[in-house]
Amino acid sequence: MFFASDNTSPAHPKVMQALADANEGYAMPYGNDPIMDRVRQKIRDLFEAPEAAVYLCATGTSANSIALACLCQPWQTVFAHRNSHVEEDECGAPEFFTGGAKITLVAGDHAKMDPKALREALTFTGRAGVHNVQRGALTLTNTTENGTVYSVSDVAELAAIAKSFDLPVHMDGARFANAIAATNASPAEMTWKAGVDVLTFGGTKNGLLGVEAVVLFNPDKAWEFELRRKRGGHLFSKHRYLSAQMEAYVTDGLWMQLARQANDAAARLSAGILDIEGASLMHPTQGNTVFASWPRGGHKRAHDAGAAYYFWPMDQDLEGPEDELLSARLVCSWCTTSQDVDQFLSLLRG
Amino acid sequence: MFFASDNTSPAHPKVMQALADANEGYAMPYGNDPIMDRVRQKIRDLFEAPEAAVYLCATGTSANSIALACLCQPWQTVFAHRNSHVEEDECGAPEFFTGGAKITLVAGDHAKMDPKALREALTFTGRAGVHNVQRGALTLTNTTENGTVYSVSDVAELAAIAKSFDLPVHMDGARFANAIAATNASPAEMTWKAGVDVLTFGGTKNGLLGVEAVVLFNPDKAWEFELRRKRGGHLFSKHRYLSAQMEAYVTDGLWMQLARQANDAAARLSAGILDIEGASLMHPTQGNTVFASWPRGGHKRAHDAGAAYYFWPMDQDLEGPEDELLSARLVCSWCTTSQDVDQFLSLLRG
Amino acid sequence: MFFASDNTSPAHPKVMQALADANEGYAMPYGNDPIMDRVRQKIRDLFEAPEAAVYLCATGTSANSIALACLCQPWQTVFAHRNSHVEEDECGAPEFFTGGAKITLVAGDHAKMDPKALREALTFTGRAGVHNVQRGALTLTNTTENGTVYSVSDVAELAAIAKSFDLPVHMDGARFANAIAATNASPAEMTWKAGVDVLTFGGTKNGLLGVEAVVLFNPDKAWEFELRRKRGGHLFSKHRYLSAQMEAYVTDGLWMQLARQANDAAARLSAGILDIEGASLMHPTQGNTVFASWPRGGHKRAHDAGAAYYFWPMDQDLEGPEDELLSARLVCSWCTTSQDVDQFLSLLRG
Amino acid sequence: MFFASDNTSPAHPKVMQALADANEGYAMPYGNDPIMDRVRQKIRDLFEAPEAAVYLCATGTSANSIALACLCQPWQTVFAHRNSHVEEDECGAPEFFTGGAKITLVAGDHAKMDPKALREALTFTGRAGVHNVQRGALTLTNTTENGTVYSVSDVAELAAIAKSFDLPVHMDGARFANAIAATNASPAEMTWKAGVDVLTFGGTKNGLLGVEAVVLFNPDKAWEFELRRKRGGHLFSKHRYLSAQMEAYVTDGLWMQLARQANDAAARLSAGILDIEGASLMHPTQGNTVFASWPRGGHKRAHDAGAAYYFWPMDQDLEGPEDELLSARLVCSWCTTSQDVDQFLSLLRG
Repeated sequence: MFFASDNTSPAHPKVMQALADANEGYAMPYGNDPIMDRVRQKIRDLFEAPEAAVYLCATGTSANSIALACLCQPWQTVFAHRNSHVEEDECGAPEFFTGGAKITLVAGDHAKMDPKALREALTFTGRAGVHNVQRGALTLTNTTENGTVYSVSDVAELAAIAKSFDLPVHMDGARFANAIAATNASPAEMTWKAGVDVLTFGGTKNGLLGVEAVVLFNPDKAWEFELRRKRGGHLFSKHRYLSAQMEAYVTDGLWMQLARQANDAAARLSAGILDIEGASLMHPTQGNTVFASWPRGGHKRAHDAGAAYYFWPMDQDLEGPEDELLSARLVCSWCTTSQDVDQFLSLLRG
Repeated sequence: MFFASDNTSPAHPKVMQALADANEGYAMPYGNDPIMDRVRQKIRDLFEAPEAAVYLCATGTSANSIALACLCQPWQTVFAHRNSHVEEDECGAPEFFTGGAKITLVAGDHAKMDPKALREALTFTGRAGVHNVQRGALTLTNTTENGTVYSVSDVAELAAIAKSFDLPVHMDGARFANAIAATNASPAEMTWKAGVDVLTFGGTKNGLLGVEAVVLFNPDKAWEFELRRKRGGHLFSKHRYLSAQMEAYVTDGLWMQLARQANDAAARLSAGILDIEGASLMHPTQGNTVFASWPRGGHKRAHDAGAAYYFWPMDQDLEGPEDELLSARLVCSWCTTSQDVDQFLSLLRG
Repeated sequence: MFFASDNTSPAHPKVMQALADANEGYAMPYGNDPIMDRVRQKIRDLFEAPEAAVYLCATGTSANSIALACLCQPWQTVFAHRNSHVEEDECGAPEFFTGGAKITLVAGDHAKMDPKALREALTFTGRAGVHNVQRGALTLTNTTENGTVYSVSDVAELAAIAKSFDLPVHMDGARFANAIAATNASPAEMTWKAGVDVLTFGGTKNGLLGVEAVVLFNPDKAWEFELRRKRGGHLFSKHRYLSAQMEAYVTDGLWMQLARQANDAAARLSAGILDIEGASLMHPTQGNTVFASWPRGGHKRAHDAGAAYYFWPMDQDLEGPEDELLSARLVCSWCTTSQDVDQFLSLLRG
Repeated sequence: MFFASDNTSPAHPKVMQALADANEGYAMPYGNDPIMDRVRQKIRDLFEAPEAAVYLCATGTSANSIALACLCQPWQTVFAHRNSHVEEDECGAPEFFTGGAKITLVAGDHAKMDPKALREALTFTGRAGVHNVQRGALTLTNTTENGTVYSVSDVAELAAIAKSFDLPVHMDGARFANAIAATNASPAEMTWKAGVDVLTFGGTKNGLLGVEAVVLFNPDKAWEFELRRKRGGHLFSKHRYLSAQMEAYVTDGLWMQLARQANDAAARLSAGILDIEGASLMHPTQGNTVFASWPRGGHKRAHDAGAAYYFWPMDQDLEGPEDELLSARLVCSWCTTSQDVDQFLSLLRG
């Protein structure tokens, strides 16, 4: 009953095995290992993008920030949802890597950017010429921070607006696998076919120890990406251990299998919570995260039994009237079992 | 016969086992895992520094750069040897993390900073007040990039010069273990007792997959370090996998055992090369790296047999007269065996 | 009838004379001119701040940005009104000078920050520890971008909130003189006595060619300011020409005389517009700027007669029905005459 | 007898008159003043460069730094003479504006870059691919910091080396006028015809209050320059006062007249010093600055009579044996008279 975050779950055994296998003998460093050659090819195949440049980073923050720095000049601004990870959870990393670009916050329900709000923000930005920061890039998070998912047409609509202003589009796919599992879209449809130029293809939250691939569908900025990655201290000397994780991830559909397990657990959890009297969802459950409220009594029982999750917002109090509603975020991962979910639900029901 | 770099060697089996052990169940992210608590304590004990702040980074470049950014303001300069890693091999990472500080290059034979040159550089810097960049920090690399080692008294002398100008001292210890193995100094003697304020305590080149500890003997900058690490994208969510590596490293003296193996291999290699007619060392062999020249014939035979190493400087030609001397860098690691060395030497002798 | 901006007006004759006087013979450069010694003393006297550090910059953007960089670390955020100059009109200069800090936008009517909104923004910021940017500094603009004025008690209230979070307070006083003229507060009351730590004391918009003083009431950051100013290319070699302007400005109350002239013109203009049928003010007229709307017919007549000002917002159309209301910004300066105002009003009335 | 620096001299009367003339009535801000239109045209004509983009900055440091930031990425390095202003006298401004680029120091006598040293530095840089900072731009200072002058063929030779590595070339022409006066080259010959891409065309040291033009012979980076200038706080609202200075400067050859006066004074001074027994020049006198040594007795007499100049290096002592040689830097400016020089020389001779 551990729903605190998907980054608290362990790595999948196949990933651990791949690490062990990669540990044989000597290997060329800095991404010149033969495993990386295979990873590059597998990801190009997966995305139907034979020209794409593919790189590995060990953290999502670095993957996002280096990608954005390649797309946005220091005097420009990144358009992001106000609840995006780049705005709220990276301690200013995009500002650091871009050399001081801004992030323009765009509204929209359930952490999904509203197309009208995006168009307005784009129109407003740079209206006074040299006195204003200029339009830089659009970044979309899929699956969003609220556990909702952009469909292919959602992405295409927003990307088209960005393109009408000549802006490149980045997708923060820390939970990309969950979005694919939710929509059954192909990776290509969800990305470059819909207008995405650069993808952070997350693995860390979905069964790896710590690896994200950055996929530049247009390789023009590949060398710049490499230099920024190195200069940011994110080029690993013993790179084979990143390669090995990612190879396991994209082999035999492991990434999709794990995402489906997480999404299924969240769906089961979400449905079960809705059966509780007084319970409701704050956001639709579309990926692996459930945002819901239910009476304090259920929270107390879960807490006493050792269940782990965060109140959302965090400043709520476990003490108080039994029937008052408290809201929470519950994150499922690849290793959340039906038993975990059912045991948790039975506690909630009391 | 793989002497290309110590970062091409695999991780030690105990480290792999520690990773596997750490993969059980859920763990709190971002350094709040219980393994990290043990790591912190073990490193404090190892360095006789109960107050030290201890953090993990996954690359040496990030560890060095974040540490230097805590010590050096943007309008200041870091005093470094001209052959240091921070100057030559990090694509400007210290400049990036500090916000544009300079690196002032200090001379000295065999990649060891000359005290007189340091004093002169310090005296010269900032002489014109606001018009000049100001003195920021001293960084020393031990073991150096030329495979030589600063003794405790070497460090103390240079640190004292820096302190006389009120400068903090950083040590890039990517190969710190090899320096300790070479000198039999205690970790405390080589660092804070000699005037070092912040140490990058390297593990990656010495049997880990990719972890360096940063030890701030004075914890005043600890929170700043944490913020800079996060903002640089270097705070790992699944931090336990870093912790596990470092725990294995500092348990039962593994770090020293591995460094001794590497140093011993280098000593055997160095001595063997000197037995070859015409051969000589470019730098004294004190750590795990040998810089030597010998006749081209030996290079050809080694090359044909598949031995891997770099010419040093790199722009030398394998083709040419047999007896012409070509120089090379040979790096031994924890997994370099006596057999490797002897086989290589026999090829050189022909 | 030139109401486009106060930065389109000429310099006052006394300022030009001071420049001419300063042009005699040789003078020490970089702020070591004797005029600067007098300026420093006069400003200290004016602000009853004998310990204050006083520096000159030639642009408001540089003065604000260097000041903020001294108060806000790269991983922190500046709390500013969403209609502030630092947010909207400096092309990201604060982000550049701080090394990538954020600006957190705080709401409030008429470009005055709402204390409740400030408190909420402060409370929200940094709630997740290392994952968030941290609280950095508060900046207030007085006179605001909407021509309104913070009273001494307004400033004190907002500064006290900032201080309760240990934040320093900056005041962008590009139109500080107009605020003093509007409130009859003393410079000390409006600044350090109300909790302001650093003031940009503007002169450019109020009769100078281009000089702002930065007053650090606490001189602890003085040397850092000097280094940042130099490094930003804002330390003038022939500094005497900045000093001379500022000396004229703070001699015999010229700065207040000019601000009163501008404020009086705006008051006359504002009152006259309100006499027009259908006209209204978008913001109260408290300083030297009027935000008002009146029927298109009046705009057309003014435009045909060569009056200069901006529609506000800018994307309104001079062509259309006569009685439709169009809104505008009208900025008065020290050289706006009653005749200018009356002539303009008569055009508006038709 | 004021030889401390050319930035201690006053502005020329024609420049002051131009300022006064510019002070009439209202003028559009931020470079949209009509005087700037004329300045742009005059500079294009002067440089036979009808397509050039022309901008004004108020300090040499800002002009150089913004120009270099347009030419050099953060992960690249600027090749500069080790005695250049950008390296020694700007407190790291190029590092700041470029976002942390390096400056690679190139040797050469008398502050003139040695072509062989440049080629070696270029060849060495970036040899290890992504691990190294990359080649960015070449910057040459003409007149140099040692008072020597690059001929057109000197510039062409160095620029050709840079171009063979695809590098752009910047010229720091803080004393460009003195170099033109020394060589009788045309402005076009000395710049774009010899391979210079961007020129800082200095006025401050040669009779203005504080204006430098930046001339981008290829206007591709013009918009980037404008944004960087604004973001750096260097776009003046009351821009007409910069325009007016520069217009006077390039009208009727004033800039050349003033430079010739300064060079002639330096030549007279240099020749006179060489007549003194024991005296010698440290660098050839080619522009407006003399580097010379003569016996302490002469220094004492000059000092007692109130002559102002710097020992070079600065740490020499006025007290000591009369006949010991002390070295000094003597800078002449447009307002140095023959009488000043002769009076000074008579003191030296005793």
